[in-house]
Amino acid sequence: MITTANIKNGVNVDQLVETIEHVQEQPELAKFEFRTKTNWITGGHCVSSAKSFYGVCQEDTTRKETFTMEADHPNVLLGEDKAATPAEIVLHALGSCLTGAMVYHAAANGIEIEGAEASLKGGADLHGFLGLDPEVRKGFDGITVKFKVRSDASEEQLRSLAQFSPVFDMLSNPTPVKIEFEK
Amino acid sequence: MITTANIKNGVNVDQLVETIEHVQEQPELAKFEFRTKTNWITGGHCVSSAKSFYGVCQEDTTRKETFTMEADHPNVLLGEDKAATPAEIVLHALGSCLTGAMVYHAAANGIEIEGAEASLKGGADLHGFLGLDPEVRKGFDGITVKFKVRSDASEEQLRSLAQFSPVFDMLSNPTPVKIEFEK
Repeated sequence: MITTANIKNGVNVDQLVETIEHVQEQPELAKFEFRTKTNWITGGHCVSSAKSFYGVCQEDTTRKETFTMEADHPNVLLGEDKAATPAEIVLHALGSCLTGAMVYHAAANGIEIEGAEASLKGGADLHGFLGLDPEVRKGFDGITVKFKVRSDASEEQLRSLAQFSPVFDMLSNPTPVKIEFEK
Repeated sequence: MITTANIKNGVNVDQLVETIEHVQEQPELAKFEFRTKTNWITGGHCVSSAKSFYGVCQEDTTRKETFTMEADHPNVLLGEDKAATPAEIVLHALGSCLTGAMVYHAAANGIEIEGAEASLKGGADLHGFLGLDPEVRKGFDGITVKFKVRSDASEEQLRSLAQFSPVFDMLSNPTPVKIEFEK
């Protein structure tokens, strides 16, 4: 008998169901730790790298590549415009995470996604960053995500699937950030 | 008379001071809007692009390049490991933004930064993302940033400079995210 993998939306649904079963049997499999390192170049120009992570009760050994990611600022914000700004990188992380969460949870629920595109925007007032007005926040005052999704699922279904996104949670709800200094 | 630009930490301090003065005279110069578009490839693999933005009372015309950024998931999270995960991308955005904020505000205060490196980690429990336990959050339960900075400034000074970071604010405090669907 020939069996083929049960793939939906590019997600291996058999492996997803197995993952859920394993986590239910052995809850500590679900603990992950992701790590990056950011090196300062000059001004607002930085390069980060990501490789090692912990998950499924062990240090990962499967990832062969170190991913490098840059950040800079446009000229009007005194940068050399060599890469996207950290604010745009947040939008990239959010757009990708909402999309991935929608696609994975759709697959788990037998919902087909034929195509998806998200346009994101975030507004900020530099009075916050520049320290000119303590009443103005430093980050985005809000983010709007406009999805175009080709799927038979309803808007309400797609929204509830997308909202499983970890980055959506990290932004919508406070995420404690501890800053330490080493000599 | 030959004059040279007043550069500190790679930041043009004259331009920074001018920017602050202009914003104080004309507050609407400080309003920025950043935008990205995320295109779904397959599974958890997405590509985002960033180019246009609004700031200083106009649509930007100086940025010539469209920056593209990828996201994927490692094999153990059912991806093809073609790029960093959205969670790692959040750490990259945070590390770059904290570093940039520290460097810019140090420059404005006459503090020299000779070198900076930040190691970030964030922990997550998949019970949240998988919808197995509503008590467990989907995003990072917390992020730790370890800085190594070569500077004469005290740890307290560096911390207060870094905390001008917009992305630090976006994560530490709730950032409203509105999700809309278009046909």
